[in-house]
Amino acid sequence: MTDRSEIDTLIDLMARLPGLGPRSARRAVLQLVSKREIQLRPLATAMQRVADTARECLNCGNIGTADVCPVCADEARGNGQICVVEDVADLWAMERSGVFKGRYHVLGGTLSALDAVGPEELRIPQLIRRVEAEEVTEVILALNATVDGQTTAHYIADQLEGRVTLSSLAQGVPIGGELDYLDDGTITAALNARKRM
Amino acid sequence: MTDRSEIDTLIDLMARLPGLGPRSARRAVLQLVSKREIQLRPLATAMQRVADTARECLNCGNIGTADVCPVCADEARGNGQICVVEDVADLWAMERSGVFKGRYHVLGGTLSALDAVGPEELRIPQLIRRVEAEEVTEVILALNATVDGQTTAHYIADQLEGRVTLSSLAQGVPIGGELDYLDDGTITAALNARKRM
Repeated sequence: MTDRSEIDTLIDLMARLPGLGPRSARRAVLQLVSKREIQLRPLATAMQRVADTARECLNCGNIGTADVCPVCADEARGNGQICVVEDVADLWAMERSGVFKGRYHVLGGTLSALDAVGPEELRIPQLIRRVEAEEVTEVILALNATVDGQTTAHYIADQLEGRVTLSSLAQGVPIGGELDYLDDGTITAALNARKRM
Repeated sequence: MTDRSEIDTLIDLMARLPGLGPRSARRAVLQLVSKREIQLRPLATAMQRVADTARECLNCGNIGTADVCPVCADEARGNGQICVVEDVADLWAMERSGVFKGRYHVLGGTLSALDAVGPEELRIPQLIRRVEAEEVTEVILALNATVDGQTTAHYIADQLEGRVTLSSLAQGVPIGGELDYLDDGTITAALNARKRM
């Protein structure tokens, strides 16, 4: 074998990224090496910069470059609504839609007896404190429609019962969805929540 | 939208890697940020190091960290055989098999009238010079079994005709391959090159 240890190290590290395996990591590294100045160096610099500056928002758990993220820092978004999401990827997905004008609370996962994840691990106490401190009127539970997600939603709903309005995302047919490709559970939910036209 | 410009920059750069799109780049960056010390920093450092040290071997075109790659520097591999490959990924694939004990020559692509790639663009003149300078006895054309690869192989064979032994990789049924899943061309090649048992 050739002694290309630095390149091998890079390939090994790239192969640990989600969505890349050893083969695609090799392909990516070869492309990076051949486009050293326009791809490899900027990527190395960007990673270094994110490693130095990225941090969790102390208030909501979003990832940003300051102690308080721009959403929490924006006075206009303190409209009394808090949208509870499982992780930062969900928060970013909500932000891309651009439809929600309130603030967020990132749990960092879901309750799970199997993995020994309890409320303390999930920033749920912080959520309850925020509800008291920020004059919150509505908590929207935007958790994934999985068993763990819904269990967590019910637990939070129990904790906040009577203090604020609680809501969850509507379930039904996705926009552009075809009935033929939907699972029974989605069709059942969509039928039960049917709307008068 | 949140103002997470440094993180956005990193996502955009990651999304340009082969095999990653915007969605998987976001997922990769979120994982990197959450594993900052054990993944993000080592990756940034490895990229910086490769950007600083990686270079093409002046002799064969392999990628390494010195002007002459370890294969070319290894006296034991100067056995008179040169294996011609299209790109560095092919060289690495040959090295992984561990079966070839000679040296390589990376063309950097294939001849292509459509893309205006001629012999000068492909390190073919360097190959001919090496054949004269390195006491080469055999040139193995390990080019891909595509139209462009085979055109390039024929061109090189024409150039070196009479000076060295020329050979190419055998074509046939891959190890573990099932006839039912092979294309007609492969079956034809395997039948024509059948061996007595």
